[in-house]
Amino acid sequence: MTSFHPPQRTLMGPGPSDVHPRVLEALSRPTVGHLDPAFQALMAEVKELLRATFLTKNALTFPTSAPGSAGMEACFVNLLEPGDTAIVCRNGVFGGRMLEIVERCGARAVVVDDAWGDPVDPQKLSDALAAHPAAKVVAFVHAETSTGAQSDAAVLCGLARERGCLSIVDTVTSLGGTPVEVDAWGADAVYSGSQKCLSCVPGIAPVTFSPRAVAAVEGRRTKVQSWFLDLSLVMAYWGEGSRSYHHTAPVNAIYALHESLLLLQEEGLEAAWARHARNHRALAAGLEAMGLSFAVAPAHRLPQLNAVTVPAGVEEAAVRARLLHDFGIELGAGLGAMAGKIWRIGLMGHSSRRRNVLLCLAALEVVLRDMGVDIHGGQGLAAAEAFYAGGGQSF
Amino acid sequence: MTSFHPPQRTLMGPGPSDVHPRVLEALSRPTVGHLDPAFQALMAEVKELLRATFLTKNALTFPTSAPGSAGMEACFVNLLEPGDTAIVCRNGVFGGRMLEIVERCGARAVVVDDAWGDPVDPQKLSDALAAHPAAKVVAFVHAETSTGAQSDAAVLCGLARERGCLSIVDTVTSLGGTPVEVDAWGADAVYSGSQKCLSCVPGIAPVTFSPRAVAAVEGRRTKVQSWFLDLSLVMAYWGEGSRSYHHTAPVNAIYALHESLLLLQEEGLEAAWARHARNHRALAAGLEAMGLSFAVAPAHRLPQLNAVTVPAGVEEAAVRARLLHDFGIELGAGLGAMAGKIWRIGLMGHSSRRRNVLLCLAALEVVLRDMGVDIHGGQGLAAAEAFYAGGGQSF
Repeated sequence: MTSFHPPQRTLMGPGPSDVHPRVLEALSRPTVGHLDPAFQALMAEVKELLRATFLTKNALTFPTSAPGSAGMEACFVNLLEPGDTAIVCRNGVFGGRMLEIVERCGARAVVVDDAWGDPVDPQKLSDALAAHPAAKVVAFVHAETSTGAQSDAAVLCGLARERGCLSIVDTVTSLGGTPVEVDAWGADAVYSGSQKCLSCVPGIAPVTFSPRAVAAVEGRRTKVQSWFLDLSLVMAYWGEGSRSYHHTAPVNAIYALHESLLLLQEEGLEAAWARHARNHRALAAGLEAMGLSFAVAPAHRLPQLNAVTVPAGVEEAAVRARLLHDFGIELGAGLGAMAGKIWRIGLMGHSSRRRNVLLCLAALEVVLRDMGVDIHGGQGLAAAEAFYAGGGQSF
Repeated sequence: MTSFHPPQRTLMGPGPSDVHPRVLEALSRPTVGHLDPAFQALMAEVKELLRATFLTKNALTFPTSAPGSAGMEACFVNLLEPGDTAIVCRNGVFGGRMLEIVERCGARAVVVDDAWGDPVDPQKLSDALAAHPAAKVVAFVHAETSTGAQSDAAVLCGLARERGCLSIVDTVTSLGGTPVEVDAWGADAVYSGSQKCLSCVPGIAPVTFSPRAVAAVEGRRTKVQSWFLDLSLVMAYWGEGSRSYHHTAPVNAIYALHESLLLLQEEGLEAAWARHARNHRALAAGLEAMGLSFAVAPAHRLPQLNAVTVPAGVEEAAVRARLLHDFGIELGAGLGAMAGKIWRIGLMGHSSRRRNVLLCLAALEVVLRDMGVDIHGGQGLAAAEAFYAGGGQSF
C-alpha cells in the first residue's frame, strides 16, 4: 500500500465542490491545540465570518465538528423533546431525512408533502399550522439538493413565527450560492455544510440559533439525547468567555473554513450570488440549445444545483462514467424517486466558473452525440459563449 | 481580517499531537467526490489499515466522520436501548462521560468507581457483574486521558464476555501508543481518535465492532436515537458492495488518516509501542531527577500521557503559559478533580521523539528554576540523555 494521490477532478455534482487552492493550503498548516490562545482567536473570527455569511446577529453561531447531516441532527435534538409536534415540509430526500430525525427524537411529525422538484407550498404549511396549533417546530429545506428546487424561506419562516413556532431551516446547498438571510427571514435554527457553495472541504456544518431557539434549549425539561451535539455543552467551548473542554475541534478543518469564508467576504456575498446566477444561466442556455430540459420550473431553480432530465432511452450512469473517465468531470446522479431520471449538475462555490460551464457543455455534447442522442445540432457550447459575450457579462 | 497563520508549536499535551508533515501534505491534496471510484478504493484501504492497527478481523471497522467523542456516542447509542443496563467503570473524566451517554440512551447505569489515577479494579467489575446479571454492556476506558492510567483491557473484556455482556472500550489515547489488541481481548465495540498516537489531524474517530456487536445492533427492537451515527445506515456507505449515500465523508481528513496509518505500518506497531515506552522512560528519568513525581503508579502509567504532580505552591497555569510563550511547547492541564494538581505531558505519535523529551525537560528546568522551585540541582536533561545513551537505546 502506498500514499494516496487523488485523480484531478472537476467537481460538478451535488458537493463536494472544487476546493480553492487557498483553502487547501490553509488546511495543511501545522496543527495547534484546540485550546491554544491563537486558535481561540481564530474561533472568534470564524464565528464573526459565519454571522456575516448567514446575515445574522445571532450570538450562537458556530461550526459543528461534523458533516451537514450532523448539523441537521443538532438542530432537531436540541429543539425537540419527546411528545413535541413538528411540522416537516417534504419535497425531496432531505425533507424525508428531517422526518426520520423527528421520529427518533420521540416527537410527533406532521408531514406537508409537495411534489419532488416543486418548492414547499406556503398554503399547505399554513393549513397544517392551523390544524396543529400545538406544533412547536416547522422544518423545511431551503434548497433541496436532491431536486434542485428552492423554497421561499422568508414566507415559510414568517408563517411559523405567526403561529409561535420555531423554524428549522436546511441551507446546506444555498449558503453562499443564493441569498440566505437568517435575521430577515426570522429563522430560528439554521444549518449548512462546508462542501457546497462555501467550497471548503467536507466535514463541517455551520449552524446558527436565534435567541428564541436558545431560550427553547434553556427551557428544556429533558436532557438532549445526543451528548456530542448538546448545545449547552458545545457552547461552553464555542461560546464567549473562558473555553472549557467538550470535544477536540477539527483544528485544520477550521483553518480551511476560515479561509473559505474570507474568500467569500473578499468577493462579496452579493457578487457571489450574482456569479452563481450568471453561470447557471449560461449553462441553462447551453443545455436548452442541446434540447435538454430542467426538472424544475424556472422560478424555483437553484442556480448552484441544476437538475437536468435524462433524455428518454439514455443510460444516465454511462454518461456520468464517460464524463468522469474521459474528462475528469463529476456530475451527480438522481437520489430516491429521481434516481435514473435526472443528472445533478453542480455549479457551487469555486466550481461555479465560466470554464467549468464550457467544459461541461463541450464534454456533454461529445458524449451524448457518441451515444446517438439528438442534441439539436450541438449548439450548446456556442449558446453559452453567446450568453457570456452578451447580456451574461452585464448580469 | 486576514488568512490565519498558526504559530509553530510543539504539541505535548493530551492531543492533538504533532502531525507528521507527510500527513499534512496528504490532507491538502485536491478534494474528490465521496462517491468517486478512486475514493472508494481509498476507503477499502483505510478499513484494511484500521484492522491492522486495531489488530482485528472485524468486518465492521471504519472511521466515523466526527471526533472521538462522537465515536464514543456511536458505540453506546447503537448497542444500548431504553431499559438496558450498562456497567460503567469510572476512574476519570472519560468514564464519567460514558455514564452521561448511557443515561441519555434511556438505559440504566451501574457505576464501578475507582480512584482517579488508578486502573479499573477487575474484582469490582466482577462483583458488579455478579450483582447485575441482566447487564447487557460493560464499558471502560483503556487509557484514561484525564489521569494517565491504563487498565487491563484483556481482563476486563474477558470478565464481560464470561457473563455474556458486550464490552465497549475507549482506546482514544492508547491506539498506536500502547498495545490495543481488539480480537485478543475479545472486545466488542472499540473507538479511538485520530489526533492522539495516530498523529493525524483531529476530527475522525476510528471504530470497530465485533460480529457479536453487529448481531446486537441487528437485533434491536428500537431505532438508534441518532440518525447520523446509526450503524445500519452508515454501513450502507462504509460497508462492502455498492455504496449508497448517507452523509458526505470528510474526504481530505480521510486522505490524512490513510497516510498516518501507513506511517504507523511502515514503522511497525511493535516498534511504535517500544518508541513510546522508551521516550516515556527518558522523560520520567529526567522529571524524577528534578524531584518531580507522577500521579500514577509505575505499573499503570501510560507512556504517551504523563500525569505529573504540580509541586506544592506552584501556579501550574503560569508554568504552561511560559512554556507556550517562550518555547512554543503546549502541555495539558488537569481536568475535573485533577485540575490545578497535575500537568499532562503528552508523548503521542509523532510527538514521541527524543528531541521533544529533551526540549521539554530543558524548558521545564529553566521555567521552574526561575519560579524558585527546588529542582534538585537541575539534572533532568542530563538524566534523560544518560538514559538514551545507556539502556534506553537498546529498549
